[in-house]
Amino acid sequence: MEQLSIGIDLGGTYIKAGVITNQGKAIRQWKIPTEGQQGGPAVVRRMSDLVAEILESPEVASKRDSVVGVGIGSPGLVDQRAGTITRPVNIPNWEDAVPIKKIFEERHGLPTQADNDANACGLGEACFGAGRGKSVVVALTLGTGVGGAIVVDGKVFHGSRGYAGELGHTCVDPEGPPCACGGIGCVEGYASANAIARYATELVAQGRHKSYLVDWSRDGTPITSKMVYEAAVKQDPLALRVIARAGRYLGVAVSNFCVALNPEVVVIGGGASAMGDLLFDHIRREMEMRVYFSPYYTTEVCRAQLGEDAGFTGAACLALTVR
Amino acid sequence: MEQLSIGIDLGGTYIKAGVITNQGKAIRQWKIPTEGQQGGPAVVRRMSDLVAEILESPEVASKRDSVVGVGIGSPGLVDQRAGTITRPVNIPNWEDAVPIKKIFEERHGLPTQADNDANACGLGEACFGAGRGKSVVVALTLGTGVGGAIVVDGKVFHGSRGYAGELGHTCVDPEGPPCACGGIGCVEGYASANAIARYATELVAQGRHKSYLVDWSRDGTPITSKMVYEAAVKQDPLALRVIARAGRYLGVAVSNFCVALNPEVVVIGGGASAMGDLLFDHIRREMEMRVYFSPYYTTEVCRAQLGEDAGFTGAACLALTVR
Repeated sequence: MEQLSIGIDLGGTYIKAGVITNQGKAIRQWKIPTEGQQGGPAVVRRMSDLVAEILESPEVASKRDSVVGVGIGSPGLVDQRAGTITRPVNIPNWEDAVPIKKIFEERHGLPTQADNDANACGLGEACFGAGRGKSVVVALTLGTGVGGAIVVDGKVFHGSRGYAGELGHTCVDPEGPPCACGGIGCVEGYASANAIARYATELVAQGRHKSYLVDWSRDGTPITSKMVYEAAVKQDPLALRVIARAGRYLGVAVSNFCVALNPEVVVIGGGASAMGDLLFDHIRREMEMRVYFSPYYTTEVCRAQLGEDAGFTGAACLALTVR
Repeated sequence: MEQLSIGIDLGGTYIKAGVITNQGKAIRQWKIPTEGQQGGPAVVRRMSDLVAEILESPEVASKRDSVVGVGIGSPGLVDQRAGTITRPVNIPNWEDAVPIKKIFEERHGLPTQADNDANACGLGEACFGAGRGKSVVVALTLGTGVGGAIVVDGKVFHGSRGYAGELGHTCVDPEGPPCACGGIGCVEGYASANAIARYATELVAQGRHKSYLVDWSRDGTPITSKMVYEAAVKQDPLALRVIARAGRYLGVAVSNFCVALNPEVVVIGGGASAMGDLLFDHIRREMEMRVYFSPYYTTEVCRAQLGEDAGFTGAACLALTVR
């Protein structure tokens, strides 16, 4: 029987939503501004009003009995058992734990699940994207930070207290740079958009390299990770060096995930994943060097497929019976 | 209803066995020499004959209907789905995959499960030892190498192809020493008995340190990990330095397991675990430095409780319904 689920992706700028079938088809999508400056309670109200609007939309209202639940992917601390969201990054005035599960269930009468945004994206890819049909999926999202998710048989692996999958904070060099998380040498410090921009800026500042990035930043324009990707695609040696470093450290982390979790596939999404093999080949090379028992540890590394839709698709999966 | 399970721990020197209740009680134990020099088929026959003997023993024969199965923990490559064991370390002439599950099931008419010895030990600790009642347990065994296991809700986590949990091959320094597995900077290279003995030998060879180990090895006696532990307990500075280094790198690895898996407890067994807090405090210090979101990641580090019995107890758990 067809099931429908409403997935909501809470971002700093936009709230995106989609109604997803249990075959992974999005029957309609919505996108509204978050208006985070209005604070947590107002944002929760906007999300809840959006759910009401979705339920009344012609595509959904005619199939109301097929709607099995609501899933929410959010930044910040999400306690998926209690159903609360605390301090989502980029949304000010949201310090306390908001019981979003309770609020939604009381208003809409639909089972509601919340999880962190990296877990939602990973779940979306595992169920309906690059990890479709695979038993154990490790997903990384290379954004401002490095998000992670472990998905086992179509379910997010949460660990004992709900905070498993923080793969961006895997240490890849015990003497490495300090990380915002309080740790040291986390892979996020080498492979996030921030880390990539920072290392490129350092190399440009040395003044010893010819590079598009030198030209593009001559007028004081700050170097962004996006500029690095653009230059790398043009075979710019400095940009390629920055990407190689990110890829090598990602490869150390991914090798560790392979020996610990023996996943079938590692799915990489987010901005830097647009580089494809230019980045992934460095990861694969480290894995070849590091992961033993190779025939048993054959793990594919591939690019995420759902792009911007991963967040709400995965959120919807929280409420679907996918397998 | 009481269930009984026969657990077999295949070692290089001894085959140990126990009959375990689903409450974790060993109602009797057996220990026979492996006689590995006779080769794989002979060893399998010895194990199988031991099962027949156990089934005929008075303690078991009277409760024959309660016996639910046989579990086997073995070194080497164990394919737990196919039920085969290939090339167990320390047992010569055992190159091919032996279908031990099939052999045992045909002869004894009991469901039989095989798994690798580190997984069996970890499962034993998780079900009936230091991890009893905990949802996610990470277990490390510090022996000649460093074995690992991830146990979730009383079941070994095997990953997509059965080779998850090889935690000793977590890279803790990408520029570290080469490992026997083909990797680089694996935690096994810092924290195994071999690594501990090797580093102590290096420090002694420098000739700059006063130490019991200098005295004890003056006549050419090779330094063993056990000698290092004995000296460390006597507050020998050189030995303490060796232990501190092993503990720090173990702490890096354990921190990585915490952010990835969010376990409730990390159980550490094997020779070096006898040092207790002398070793564990270094691990805990690294975790405090490295693992963020601390209230959510409160993970206990504690010593394994089952000692020599962990292997057959855990093997028995493979065939029991523990939860």
